[in-house]
Parts: sequence; structure tokens; C-alpha cells
Amino acid sequence: MAPPLPTHLDLSAVASCDSWNSWLLFFGVESMGKLWGGRFVGSIDPDMEAFNASIPFDERLWDADLRGSEAWVRALTRARVLSSLEAERLLDGLARVREEWGKGSFHILPEDEDIHTANERRLTEIVGPVAGKLHTGRSRNDQVATDTRIYLRDEIDVLDVMLADMQGAALELAKAHLNVVMPGYTHLQRAQPIRFSHWMMSYFWMWQRDRERLAEVRHRVNVCPLGSGALAGTPFPIDRAALAEDLGFDSASPNSMDAVSDRDYIVEFLAWGALLGVHLSRLAEDLILWSSSEFRFVSLADAYSTGSSLMPQKKNPDSLELLRGKAGRLTGNLMTLLVVLKGLPSTYDKDLQEDKEPLFDAVDTLKLALPVAAGVLSTLTIHPDRMRDALSDDLLATDLADYLVRKGVPFRESHRLVGLVVRRSEELGVPLSKLHMRDLTSISSVFDDDVDGVWDFEASVERRNVLGGTSAETVKRQIEAAEKLMLTFGRERRK
Amino acid sequence: MAPPLPTHLDLSAVASCDSWNSWLLFFGVESMGKLWGGRFVGSIDPDMEAFNASIPFDERLWDADLRGSEAWVRALTRARVLSSLEAERLLDGLARVREEWGKGSFHILPEDEDIHTANERRLTEIVGPVAGKLHTGRSRNDQVATDTRIYLRDEIDVLDVMLADMQGAALELAKAHLNVVMPGYTHLQRAQPIRFSHWMMSYFWMWQRDRERLAEVRHRVNVCPLGSGALAGTPFPIDRAALAEDLGFDSASPNSMDAVSDRDYIVEFLAWGALLGVHLSRLAEDLILWSSSEFRFVSLADAYSTGSSLMPQKKNPDSLELLRGKAGRLTGNLMTLLVVLKGLPSTYDKDLQEDKEPLFDAVDTLKLALPVAAGVLSTLTIHPDRMRDALSDDLLATDLADYLVRKGVPFRESHRLVGLVVRRSEELGVPLSKLHMRDLTSISSVFDDDVDGVWDFEASVERRNVLGGTSAETVKRQIEAAEKLMLTFGRERRK
Amino acid sequence: MAPPLPTHLDLSAVASCDSWNSWLLFFGVESMGKLWGGRFVGSIDPDMEAFNASIPFDERLWDADLRGSEAWVRALTRARVLSSLEAERLLDGLARVREEWGKGSFHILPEDEDIHTANERRLTEIVGPVAGKLHTGRSRNDQVATDTRIYLRDEIDVLDVMLADMQGAALELAKAHLNVVMPGYTHLQRAQPIRFSHWMMSYFWMWQRDRERLAEVRHRVNVCPLGSGALAGTPFPIDRAALAEDLGFDSASPNSMDAVSDRDYIVEFLAWGALLGVHLSRLAEDLILWSSSEFRFVSLADAYSTGSSLMPQKKNPDSLELLRGKAGRLTGNLMTLLVVLKGLPSTYDKDLQEDKEPLFDAVDTLKLALPVAAGVLSTLTIHPDRMRDALSDDLLATDLADYLVRKGVPFRESHRLVGLVVRRSEELGVPLSKLHMRDLTSISSVFDDDVDGVWDFEASVERRNVLGGTSAETVKRQIEAAEKLMLTFGRERRK
Amino acid sequence: MAPPLPTHLDLSAVASCDSWNSWLLFFGVESMGKLWGGRFVGSIDPDMEAFNASIPFDERLWDADLRGSEAWVRALTRARVLSSLEAERLLDGLARVREEWGKGSFHILPEDEDIHTANERRLTEIVGPVAGKLHTGRSRNDQVATDTRIYLRDEIDVLDVMLADMQGAALELAKAHLNVVMPGYTHLQRAQPIRFSHWMMSYFWMWQRDRERLAEVRHRVNVCPLGSGALAGTPFPIDRAALAEDLGFDSASPNSMDAVSDRDYIVEFLAWGALLGVHLSRLAEDLILWSSSEFRFVSLADAYSTGSSLMPQKKNPDSLELLRGKAGRLTGNLMTLLVVLKGLPSTYDKDLQEDKEPLFDAVDTLKLALPVAAGVLSTLTIHPDRMRDALSDDLLATDLADYLVRKGVPFRESHRLVGLVVRRSEELGVPLSKLHMRDLTSISSVFDDDVDGVWDFEASVERRNVLGGTSAETVKRQIEAAEKLMLTFGRERRK
Repeated sequence: MAPPLPTHLDLSAVASCDSWNSWLLFFGVESMGKLWGGRFVGSIDPDMEAFNASIPFDERLWDADLRGSEAWVRALTRARVLSSLEAERLLDGLARVREEWGKGSFHILPEDEDIHTANERRLTEIVGPVAGKLHTGRSRNDQVATDTRIYLRDEIDVLDVMLADMQGAALELAKAHLNVVMPGYTHLQRAQPIRFSHWMMSYFWMWQRDRERLAEVRHRVNVCPLGSGALAGTPFPIDRAALAEDLGFDSASPNSMDAVSDRDYIVEFLAWGALLGVHLSRLAEDLILWSSSEFRFVSLADAYSTGSSLMPQKKNPDSLELLRGKAGRLTGNLMTLLVVLKGLPSTYDKDLQEDKEPLFDAVDTLKLALPVAAGVLSTLTIHPDRMRDALSDDLLATDLADYLVRKGVPFRESHRLVGLVVRRSEELGVPLSKLHMRDLTSISSVFDDDVDGVWDFEASVERRNVLGGTSAETVKRQIEAAEKLMLTFGRERRK
Repeated sequence: MAPPLPTHLDLSAVASCDSWNSWLLFFGVESMGKLWGGRFVGSIDPDMEAFNASIPFDERLWDADLRGSEAWVRALTRARVLSSLEAERLLDGLARVREEWGKGSFHILPEDEDIHTANERRLTEIVGPVAGKLHTGRSRNDQVATDTRIYLRDEIDVLDVMLADMQGAALELAKAHLNVVMPGYTHLQRAQPIRFSHWMMSYFWMWQRDRERLAEVRHRVNVCPLGSGALAGTPFPIDRAALAEDLGFDSASPNSMDAVSDRDYIVEFLAWGALLGVHLSRLAEDLILWSSSEFRFVSLADAYSTGSSLMPQKKNPDSLELLRGKAGRLTGNLMTLLVVLKGLPSTYDKDLQEDKEPLFDAVDTLKLALPVAAGVLSTLTIHPDRMRDALSDDLLATDLADYLVRKGVPFRESHRLVGLVVRRSEELGVPLSKLHMRDLTSISSVFDDDVDGVWDFEASVERRNVLGGTSAETVKRQIEAAEKLMLTFGRERRK
Repeated sequence: MAPPLPTHLDLSAVASCDSWNSWLLFFGVESMGKLWGGRFVGSIDPDMEAFNASIPFDERLWDADLRGSEAWVRALTRARVLSSLEAERLLDGLARVREEWGKGSFHILPEDEDIHTANERRLTEIVGPVAGKLHTGRSRNDQVATDTRIYLRDEIDVLDVMLADMQGAALELAKAHLNVVMPGYTHLQRAQPIRFSHWMMSYFWMWQRDRERLAEVRHRVNVCPLGSGALAGTPFPIDRAALAEDLGFDSASPNSMDAVSDRDYIVEFLAWGALLGVHLSRLAEDLILWSSSEFRFVSLADAYSTGSSLMPQKKNPDSLELLRGKAGRLTGNLMTLLVVLKGLPSTYDKDLQEDKEPLFDAVDTLKLALPVAAGVLSTLTIHPDRMRDALSDDLLATDLADYLVRKGVPFRESHRLVGLVVRRSEELGVPLSKLHMRDLTSISSVFDDDVDGVWDFEASVERRNVLGGTSAETVKRQIEAAEKLMLTFGRERRK
Repeated sequence: MAPPLPTHLDLSAVASCDSWNSWLLFFGVESMGKLWGGRFVGSIDPDMEAFNASIPFDERLWDADLRGSEAWVRALTRARVLSSLEAERLLDGLARVREEWGKGSFHILPEDEDIHTANERRLTEIVGPVAGKLHTGRSRNDQVATDTRIYLRDEIDVLDVMLADMQGAALELAKAHLNVVMPGYTHLQRAQPIRFSHWMMSYFWMWQRDRERLAEVRHRVNVCPLGSGALAGTPFPIDRAALAEDLGFDSASPNSMDAVSDRDYIVEFLAWGALLGVHLSRLAEDLILWSSSEFRFVSLADAYSTGSSLMPQKKNPDSLELLRGKAGRLTGNLMTLLVVLKGLPSTYDKDLQEDKEPLFDAVDTLKLALPVAAGVLSTLTIHPDRMRDALSDDLLATDLADYLVRKGVPFRESHRLVGLVVRRSEELGVPLSKLHMRDLTSISSVFDDDVDGVWDFEASVERRNVLGGTSAETVKRQIEAAEKLMLTFGRERRK
């Protein structure tokens, strides 16, 4: 028989009552693992249990989940749903749960289907039935959205620092080799001479866009859905604005139905990650090419290379190949969530549980990849001599056309004339700069002795002295702008 | 024999010379279609020509391309590369080209491989060899990036207005049916009563996020790459900041190598479109369900329905099904570009030409879809009676649990008790509100006569009176906030 | 100082020599974990080590890896590269390694970068330096391809059985409810009456296609790459056909460069999985709809349902929603690998390591999902009464048009006439079958008293008595064909 | 007033009646464009009309649609639903429609929403009301599935021939340069010497797999859905097996609900196309690299190259870059359809209309790309001298290790020793083959004078004389096997 049930439950009494165990049985706490048991008769199929459980992956939300619960206790207390005594008991209990996670002594039980259940089950074991008051007026639907947003906001801040570190490595490299001139390529064909530092800075700016975008994503991540209940809001007088502030959110969600079902912020993050992945894949491609015997413009540090199990001479740029390959899973993760969301009826559907694994995988992938990319850059050896050797005269063909332009030949015509010059040079097997003046003048009488001034790679990069161009002055200005950004961007948030 | 060639080309003279035709021949202008002809010997394979040509799809950039060229003429003039006479001649010619496009009398020739070639070829026919000065110091690499950014910026502004119209339709519908109560669903199972207007507003907020994101994308679209040349900048003293301003850009790109190869802004736009597509697919799913005989909460206007070629009774929600299906191509377009970009070496590669078709398709798809979505909403018939009929007592089970909570029962226990009540009600085949008091008290003695107050759907939605909840007051507040946003958001830009 | 090194290494001697430990040191076996150490000076960055390691996920290939190594030992022995004594020693050692994995006593060390390294390292510890002969003439490039193919071939066989089980569950359900008539839908609007069993069989045939495709994929999976070395083949006289047969492969790969880099078979498998995922998502969608209060055609067993943490009355079809959602990750996995492969130079690149996680995830996902889908079907409750209640007269409008056709009215006209009848019925608020004869004849004088024969749902499904139609006879014939297939399909392979 | 309506419609009379025009009006044929008009009151929104129409893209199905209709007429006649007179009239009319399409004189009208409507509308204009009998017992749902399958089957046969042509070009190239030795790469680092012909053949085999897969896809494409009606089959006694045979299908679909909704065959085709796209992207990547100044192993024909609008010296491999880029849209098309299908309720939903554009785009893309790829190969210039120059000694490091193995050193140890040799060679700045014997023997006393035999690239490729290896004999055997396949594969079908 059950212990006497107080007509008006006085939990403080209950919690200390001697017949705690029988009480637990009576209240069905033995089946806490099944939060939704009352209505159900049959038991769950074991395959289904494994299929349904999210604890193997959402375990990592333990801290966010506890933070959410603590704030919810405070909100319920402000709303006078909990007494201050109850609140204290619950907060103490939650602190103990946190401690156990921190120490690694928290044990997940087979019946803990998700992190919310696990934390509440443990809280119940610690503080007794008062734990049953924690879930008042909330649902796992708003709870999991809150947890995920807290988690992601924090990871975004970590990733932003990693991005800044990678930018820093690029900046250092650009500054260290400011004046190294090398061939620039389009279509992987030699095009025009550029500065190595200019190339390096082109990645700085991609990553700056990545950081801008990430700050914008963060703004939409950092919205509090707690207090939206299952879909319709909460019937208790919760001050949702205060709750949002308590949890460090920028604002509270304006519509409960949207709030429990909105996964835009994860899609945005995954799209962000896919684009960053593409940027990393392009950097990797450049450096893989340049590490080949045929280019040999750079050497990768041994610390970021591996060898072959068969071929003793091999030093392979595995770090870069993996960076390139990671664009795959980052794109795949985005695709995963878009497919999951497509065509779902509004509010919460269980399909939404499929948001977490792609999110976690994207976060983990980038947290592994960014330090490797930064490390590759900060340990990279540049071979200016090899770059210089690759500066062939054809890289100056445009300068030759511009020479004619400055003498009044319309560009379209000068382009055609220099095309003929190039053809002549190929026919004769002689570099452009070594053609006889008569070879030139037979093509156009505009060529003059001063054409020799064209054959200077340094002069060529210096000539492109516009904003964003290759001259020393403009590259330096880029670097200065970049350094200023490094000091200011995102700084306010980090304070 | 060729006409006498002035040693220092005086184009104004040339343009008016009698021997214009022979001069044209001499200068090879007959092969203008091949901008890069001088160096080449063999002719192009016809399959390759078709494979390479972008004019069938980039034709739509004609206006952006002309605007870019006009600004470039002014920039070259400011840089004293063109005389004011030459500038005038070119601007007049470009105006004539624009006129022809406007009137539909512009003829694309087989040898026009892209829109840039087509416009310049026509300009040459109109103004003569001075046209050959237009391309001085620029490349198709910076030109096409400029054109695409102008085009997309303009389309973004169109799309934003369409989004606002769709939001307006939703707002009207919400206001017209503010107090209609209906079942809210999670997992497509009846969950709790909600307001129809609250449901409608949940989409308003999704679209508001879409508009916020779009404004952010626009900011990164609206950057001027012109003056970046092929990859290294331009050797003429172009004031790129002034040029950017002339074209209505917010800023000029900081690095020429990045500028010619950056397609982030298109990826961002396509990711934006994919997410909007997902939103539309969810709205469509809701309304398709609600249009079925089984729900029949709404009726679609005939104007947005179609019939069957076989079954005479059918009225099909094709508009909604297509809206749902369009999420496919919007996602596919995003994937297309991510795959194209993955692993490309930096600066311009021809693969980048594959950016346009997914972009154009996404723009076209959304410009077709958004007015249809708005039209569906503004002509939708709501059936409040059918909604009310669907309000079954089980939607109030949570309210019943909250009733116990207010009497001191911990929520977890009250949830379990109400689970037993629900089971009893199912066993007896009696709705919850019709259970005898003794059925309730046998489950918990806390149940009292005042439990009758629970069975009121209106009261249930009113009880959720928190920010974002279902009460009339909070929904009205949502609507007010939304209306304010409609007046202010993006307004500055539209001025 | 090192121990004396035999000029012509006699390993059997070495292995038993007293100075085994110092010998190990001398030979550098202490750094076995780094298979490619000789050439390298610097040590690996720890971030890079984590980034590079595949052991956390390729561990599951342990058995396939051992099988591959055993067969390789036999092949080397046949080629007289190993003596039979050495072979015996190696096979004994590999057997010991297998035993340790089987018992769970195999310990992965931090320096084991992949499963191949781990197994060889352990083998070396067990059998001593003779282990160093195992990798003769092979590379991890052909080894990993071999392991993955063995693994996948076996998993395909498991999946095929699971598919057959799911088909079996569908067949049982179809047979148990052969004659239940229900509304058929197109566009989610009621269209024509169908048999429930016919609906169920429509999934049987989708899955039969899945099984056909899987058998075809298996054929291309089951090709042996071993003996391809790093990219150029092996210089030892290996009989690759015999080796392939030894490992149960159907054939040996015809080109070594293709063999080490071919991941087609994984792409094929992932594409197969994505399509199966789509099939499951459609089944899930049907059943989720039918489980709603509005349809209530079926009830899901409690064993495959879950409840709500907030709403006590809820019974949610989580199993089905997850089945629907899994289409996301299955599609994402396919996308991942396509992106990884795109644009890679031929032969082996490290990017290919990114093939395994999507493959393993797809296998695991389907091995979880298929039994759940089968379980849902075999425990599903059908509500024929609810289905019958939903049979409304408009489902017979096509039959009414066909009635006119049989009286000589061209179908296009009869369709129009019945459209008018439907409109009349809606205007009058009277079901089609209850319209007065004068209502009908005012629309067409062809209507006659025998029109009453149309209003019979059973007769309607019976009338569609063509191959693939809804009549009892043709559905039975479907079922018989299906049962025959179940007995024969894939049977040969399973023997 | 309407013309007298025969009580039992005698169409042959009607068709010749004088009052044809008024009759047309009476029968509402003026609105044939709206096949489903009878029931509808409101008119269609013009935005919706544009959104709904598929004629702009499904127009290309005109011939398949006519073939399907002709076969349907014959099937209806065999089923005695049509008299032979009616059948003749309809077949004559359909022949006239075909003629108009063939001559380009068919005019699509604004109200023709799809190709089926357009063809039937025109047929009605030509043959009069008997055209209204054509659609008896079929639906656009089975009709469009039939048309698409006919279309795709034919395009598959075209693509297979194109693939064979591309294989032929590869074979010719391999045979022409059978004995050219070049560096083989893994990780884009020089690995081991290979034959150029061996590299070329590695693509042959990829494409052979593509052709095998395509044949399998074709088998599932070539199934006849006609006679499945809207979803439930047809109530007229159609012999579906005979109908399938009439249309050249391999079989008839076994379940009508599956038949109208099955798009597996398109998914399969798109997945096939995506993988072929990946293969082409890898070929392109190899050749782009080899066309660079740094490699210069090959030169692309001018016919497949383009120039720069700015840089006169440029010859860019645009054909290859586009081939690489096309992998993007081919993958995007696949994703599009997977997203469309995900989560659709069974049978026909309008979303399925979104299958056609990705299908058509994939077909068009491949029909453009394959001849270009074949053309690139058949006009490619090989530079054996550049390849030979790139053969550096480190490519023989594995051979050096194998040398030690043959002297009894376990491979793992020989690998380590050669690693030390490589390091020594780098320290001394001396190629491997130029190291002094004392440098070698200081590392291992096993090195002997016969080590000189290692430094022979030709001998190295000859040593790999196993199935799939690089020796002349085994490559020749590959080529013979390939030539045999070319003669036999798919030959039966082509007869």
C-alpha cells in the first residue's frame, strides 16, 4: 500500500519522510526514464529504443542543459511557482549534478533516452520528488532548442578565435615575405606576376568574410526559446525577457510555435561551415600544387606531412588533402539538415532530432581543421628562388600590351598585336624579351627601344598600384587594414 | 594593302577616315567575336564552342554589363586614359546599345561567346575602333563579377519587396481571424489549442529572419570588384573608391586576387534561397494537410488550384505542392555551386562560369514562387467551424496537469496522474471532460469540483499569456510589433 | 651498440635470439606506429595527429583487415616471397590478433594511426621481426580498398536480409487485410477507392527494386584491388586471380591506378541508401498522416510510439518521424562523398580517407532503421471501419464519367459533364449518390436509372482488373508474384 | 442555342456535322486548354498559371507523348473501347500532329499547360470531338511517366554511344603512346614510374563501369506504367503486357500506385550522371595540371582552348575546366530530385513535376560534355620528353627497398633503411643514383654493386608484371580486353 499522500503536497516534508523508498515507488519514480509513461501500456521495442535515443550524441549538451534548468528554476521562482526553499533545493541538486559531470562520475543509464532525461533523473535521485517540479511549464521541445543554442553560441566564440588565429598566421606569413614576387595564375596558367604576400592576403579577406558572417549567425543563434512550452507557450507567468537575459541571450523568441521548430540557426551555421570548408579546400589546393616537385614553391613542415607505408621517399601533404576533403562532410552536413527540414509540418516533429549530429560533426570538424590550417601556415617554408625561376617572360605580355596602349594603340588592337608577338616568340623558340627589335617592328611600328622597360617583374607588380593591387604600397595598406581589423573585430563581444 | 597607320594613333581621325572598311579589316575587327585571337592558330571545335558559350544564359546581364562599362569609361576618363572626346563617343555608343536592347532590336551573333563580347562587338560596329579602348585595364574576370553583383543586388531588392508582400498577406490573414481557436499539433498529433492567428504569425517571423539575412547578404553582394583586372589589379591610376560609388556599391574589394574569384556572395544567396525554400515547403505542407477532406480547415481559392484530367471531382492544391517541391531545386542550386567551388585553385578558373545558371534559376524560381505564396494566403478561406469541431478534450490534458500543479502536485507526478486519466478515458470510451468525478478522484484525491474550469479551449489559449504565447493580448502584441517592422525594416534602403 | 646483424637475414634465427629487445631498438621497431619514419626528421604536430588518424572510425575494419592480410600471406607464399615457415608464423600471429579482437582484449595505442598499423604493430609484438615481411609488395592504398570492399560486401548481405524481412512484414499485412477498401489519394485529395493491400504492395515493389539495385552494387563492390600496390601494381609474382578467389571476390581489378583510387562502389552504395531513405520517408509520411486524429486509419503499436514530457495525452509516432528524417543523413552522406571526390587528381589522395565515415554512418543508419520499419508494419493496427467511413461519393466521380463513356460519350465530354454534376452536388450540399435523377438529366440526358450501379466502392476497385490494378484478382496475383520472388531472389548468393 | 445533341453519341456523325463550330462551343471545347474545367468556377491566377505550366520544359517530350498516345489508341481498340474507324481517325490525326512538330509548324498556345494538353488540343482541332475519346481510361499521371521513360530510354542509348566514343578516343591514345614512361603520383607527389598508357586505361575502366551501370539503369527505366490510370489502374480491359511490348518496353509495372509515383529511375539516372561527372572532373584535373607550365606533359589543341580578353599570351584549358565544373550541376540535379521526393505521400503529388528540369539538364549537360571530352583526348599532344625529364631518382625508392627485400631484408626494415638513404641523399644534395656505395653501405651492409640495376625506370615499370600492373605485357593485355569489350558490350541492344 502506498504511503499517505498529503492532500496539499508539502514537498519539504515528503523529501525527508522515512518511507522515501515506498514513496518513490508510489510516485512511479522508478520509471523516470520514461517521462511520458502514464498513458502507455506496452513496452518499447528494443530496436526502437536504440533508434529513438539521442543520449549517445546529445550527452555533450550536459552543461547547457544544466544552465538552462538553473535559469528555469530562477524564472519559476520569480513567477512564484516555486518557493525559495524549493528553488534552493533544486539549485543545490543541479550543482551536484554538474559536479558529477565535471568529475566524470555521472553515469548514464540505459533508460536515459536523452540528456534532459538523464539530468532530471539524476536530480530526482539527489533531491527527491521536488525534482518533479523542475519541468513545470516547460517541455523538452523548448528545452532542447535552448540547450542547443547555448551550446552553439559558445562554440561559435571558440571558432571565431580559431579563425582569428588562422588569420594571424596568414598575416605573419604575408609580412615575412612581403616582397617576394611569383607568378600569378588564372586557369592554372601563368598570367601575371604577383606578390606572394598579396596571394596570402586574399585568404585573409575570405576568412574576414567568414568571421563577419559568423557574427551575424551568432546573433540569430542567441535568441531564447525557453518559455515556449511544447508549442503554445507556458501558462505560468514567466518573465521571458528576464529569463533570456539570465541565460545571456540577446532576445527572446517572439512566437512559441516558431520557437520550438526553428532550426534556421543551425542551417545557417552549417551553410557557414560549408563555405568555410570551400575556402579551406581552395587554400589546400593551392598549397598541394605548390608542394609538388613541379612547382616546389613551398615546403610543408614535417609536422604536417606524412609518409608512405610502401614508398620510402614520400612526404605527403596529408594535412592539406584532409583540409580539402573536409569540404565534403561540411557540405554533406548542410544537405542533411535541409533534407530533414523540407516539407515538415510546422512546430515540433521528431525529425528535428536529426539536427544534432550534423551540427556536432561540423563543429568538431572545424575545431580540428582550423588549428591544422593555422599550423600549416605558421610552419610553411617559402622558396623565393623557385618562385623567381618560374617568372617567365610571357607573364609580362599584358604589360607589353599596356605599353602599346600608353603609346595610343587601342587596347583591343594592342592585345591583338601582342598576340602576334607571342606567336612569333613561340615559333622562334625565343623568350619575349629576347626577340629582336625587327621582330617587334615588323608587327607594329609603334614598338620602340623603350620597350626594354617592360621586362621587369618588379616594375610590373609595382605598376598595379590601385586599391587591391599588387604594388608594395597597396599590399602594405591591405596589411595595415587587416591588422587594425584584428584588433577591433569582435572585440566588444570578447570582453 | 592596309591603309596608312598613324604612328601615334589619333583615333578621332581614324574614326572618320574614308577607308573605314579596309581599316577594319586591317585591324582584324572582323574577328572581334574572338577577343583573344592573336595568339591562336587553329579554330575552335563547334562542340567546344557550344560548351564554352555563356551567352544563352548571361544575356540577361546586358543592362548590368552596360552600366559597368559606362562607369568604367568615366573612371578611365578621370584617370586620363581616355580623352573626354573619346569618353563621349563611347558613352554615346553604349547608350545606343542600351537602346537596342530596350527595344528588342539587339541581335546576338553566333560568335558572341558572352554578354561582354556581344556588347563590345556591337559598340565597335557603332563607334568604330575607339571601342577598342573600352577594355583598357580591365578583364572579363573583374567585369563579369561586377555585372553579376549589380544584377543580384537589384534582384535582391525585388525579392525583398515580394517577401514583404507575403508577410503582409500573412498579417492580414492573422488579423482577420485573430480569435479563431484550433488544434495545435506536434508530431502531427493534436497537442494543445492555439489561435489560427498565432500559427500564421509563426511564418511571419520566419520570413522576417529571411529578410534580415537577405539584407546581410546584400551588404556582401554590394562590393565592387571592378579594377581588379584579371587577377593583379589594373596598371592605370583608377580611383576604385570613386568607381564603386559611381556604380552604387557600398565599397570596393580589398584584394584583386580574391575579387576575381570570390563567389561567396552567390553561395550565400543560394543558401538563403534554400532556407526560404524550406520555409515555403513547410507552409505548403501545413496547408496541403489542412486542405484535405480529413482536416478541411481551409479551402484554397480556385485561382490557385487545378483539376485532374481523369477525375472530375478533384480540386488539387498544385500551387502548394509546387511550392513544396521548389525546395528541391533551391537546394540543388546551392549544392551545384558548392561542388563547383570545392578544391579550385585560387583566382579565376573557368569553372566559375558555372555560377550563373544556379543563381538565375534560384532568382527566377523565387520570383515565381513568392507571389503565388502571397496569393494563396490572401485568397485562402478559413473554416473556423471545422477547426472548432476538431478541438477534442485531449488537447486540454496539459491544462489538467497544470491544474494539479497549481494545487501543489509536482509536475512530473501530475503528468503521470493525467496519463492515467487519459488511459481511463480511452478504456471507457468517454471524453476527458465527461469522466465522472469518481473516476478522477480514484486516480488522485487532489481533483475537485473546480476541475470543470479546465474544459474551456478559449481559457486554455488565454492562459498562455507570456511573450510569444497564445493569448489574445500576446498575439496582438506580436501583430503590432510585426506591423511596426513592416513600416521600418529595409525602409532606408528603399528610399 | 647494436646486436650483430646477419648479412643475409635469417629471421627464424633472429626471432629467437636472446638480444630480442636490443634488436628491436636497433631496427627501430619501437616506432612501428610510424610506418613511414625513416625519412622524417621533425615530429608530428599533435593537432595534426588527431586530424590524420582514422583509427577511431576504421577500427571496425579489424576483421576485414586480418582476412586481407591472411590472404596476402598465402599469396606471397605461393609467389615464393615468403617461406612456408614464415607464412605459418605470420598466420599464427594473425590468428592471435584476431583472437584478441574477438575477446575484446586488443588495445589500440595512441600511435596506431589506422587499423592497418594497429594490426601490424600488434603482429610485430607477437611474432617479432618476421612481421616486417607482411607488407612486402603491398601498400596501405590497396590494403584499405580491399578491407573496405570486404566489409561492405558483408554488410550488403546483412542489409539484403533486413530488406527481405521488411518485405515479408508488408506481405503479411497485405494478405491479412486483402479486401479492406479505403480512399486512395493523389495530391492528398481523395481520388479513387483502392485496396489497403494494394497500397501496401506498392512499397513491396519499391523495396524489390532496392534489392535489385543492391545486388548490382554488390557485384561492383566485390572486386579485389589487392596487388595494386600504391598505384603501379606489385613487383612480386602474385597470382591476383587466385588471391581474389581466396578472399571471395568475384574478380580482380584490371588497372592498378584505378584500383587504389576507385570509390565508385561507395558512391553507388550511398546513392542506393539515399533512395531507400526516400522510400522509407514516403512510407513514414503515409503512416504519420494515417495515424493522425483526422485520418485515424491505423494505430501504431505502443512499442514504436513515444510520449511527451509535457502533454500527458500524447502518443507520438516518433519511430516514423525518425524514419522520415533519416533520409536527411543518407542524402547528406552521398553528398559528402561526391564533394570529396570531385576534382581529385587520379590515384590515391588522402582526401579518400573521408569515404569511411559517410559509409559507416549509412550502414549503421540503415541497420537501425530497417528493423524498426519492419517492426512498425508487423505490429500495425488497421482500422477498416475508419477507412470505410472515409469513402465518400466523390471518390466515384471517375466511375460516373466512365459510366457515360460506356454509353458512348467521349471521355473528355463525360469528364466535363461529371464536373458539372460535382458542382451541382456541392451547391446543393448533397452527396453525389443522393442527387435526384432530374439533377443528373438536366446535365446530360444520357444518365439513366442504371446509374445507381456506380455507387458501389467494392465494384469500383473490382472494375480495375488489369495487371497492376485494384481488383482482388490482380492484387492476389501481385502477392503471389511477390511470394515467389521472396523464395527465389538472391537465394543463390545466400547459399 | 446548342445544336441537337444525339442521345447516343455517334461521333462519326458529329464530326462531319455542319454546325461544327457551335457544337464546339456547346461542348466547351474552346476551353480544352483546361482539361479539368467542369468543376471549377473561378479562373486561374496568372502568376499561378506561369508557376504551374510545364510546357516550357516538357515540350521536348512531344514525340514520346505522341508515341504513347498512338499505342494507347491501339490498346483501346484491342480492348474494343474504340471502333476501328475511330482508331483510324485518331491515328491519322496523331500522324498530322507529329508532322507539324517535325516541320516546326506546331504552335503552342498560352493555355497549353503541358505537352499532353498541347498535343490533345491540336488533335481535337484536327479530328474533332472523337479526340475526346483518346484519354479514355488513362490519366496524365500514367501518361507523363510513360513519356518520360520513353524519352530517357532513347537518350540513354545516345549517351552510351557517346561514352563508347570517348572510350575509343582513350584507347587510341593509349595505343599510340603505349611505351611512354612518366612519373606516377599519389598525393600529387612523385611516387613510382608508370606508363602513360596505363594512366589512360585507368579512365577507360571507370567509363566501362559507367556503361555497365547505365545498362542496369536502362533496364529499370524501360518499364511501362501506361494503364495505371491516376493511381488505381484502368477500368477498361487493356492488355498491359501487349501495350508495353508495343512501346518497346521490357515489362509492365506491377502496381498502379507505385507506377504513377515511381521516380526511382530518374534518381538512378541522376546519380549515375553525378558519378560520371566526378570521373570527368578527375580527368580534367589531371589534364589541367599536366597542361600547366610547371608540368607541361601535354598540350591541349587550340580547338579546345580559349584565350584571355586581357592577357595576350594566355591559352587556357577552358574545355577541361568546364568539364570539371559540370560535376557541380550534375550533383545539384541529383540533390534536387532527392529533396523533391523526400517525405511525399505515396502516389502522385504535383511536386513530381519537378523531376523533369534536373533530368533534362543532366541529359543536355552530358550530351555537350562527352563529345568535348572525347575531342580533347583525340586531339591531345603528348610530350614524352617532358615526362622523361620529370623521372627523378626518388621514384625508384620503392624499387630500392624491394632490392633489399629480395636480399632477405624484411620489407618494413628495408623501407626504414631506404628512408635513411633518401635522407642522406637530400642532405648531400645528390640524387639517389649518384650516392657513393659507401654512403649506402654505411646504412646497410646488404647494399652491393648490383644496386646499380635499380636505377632504370623502364625496368621498374616492367617489374610490375601482374594483372593490372605497369609492364608492357600487362598493359597490352588490358588494351586487348578493352577492345574486345568495345566490340561486344551493349552490342545486342544496339542491333
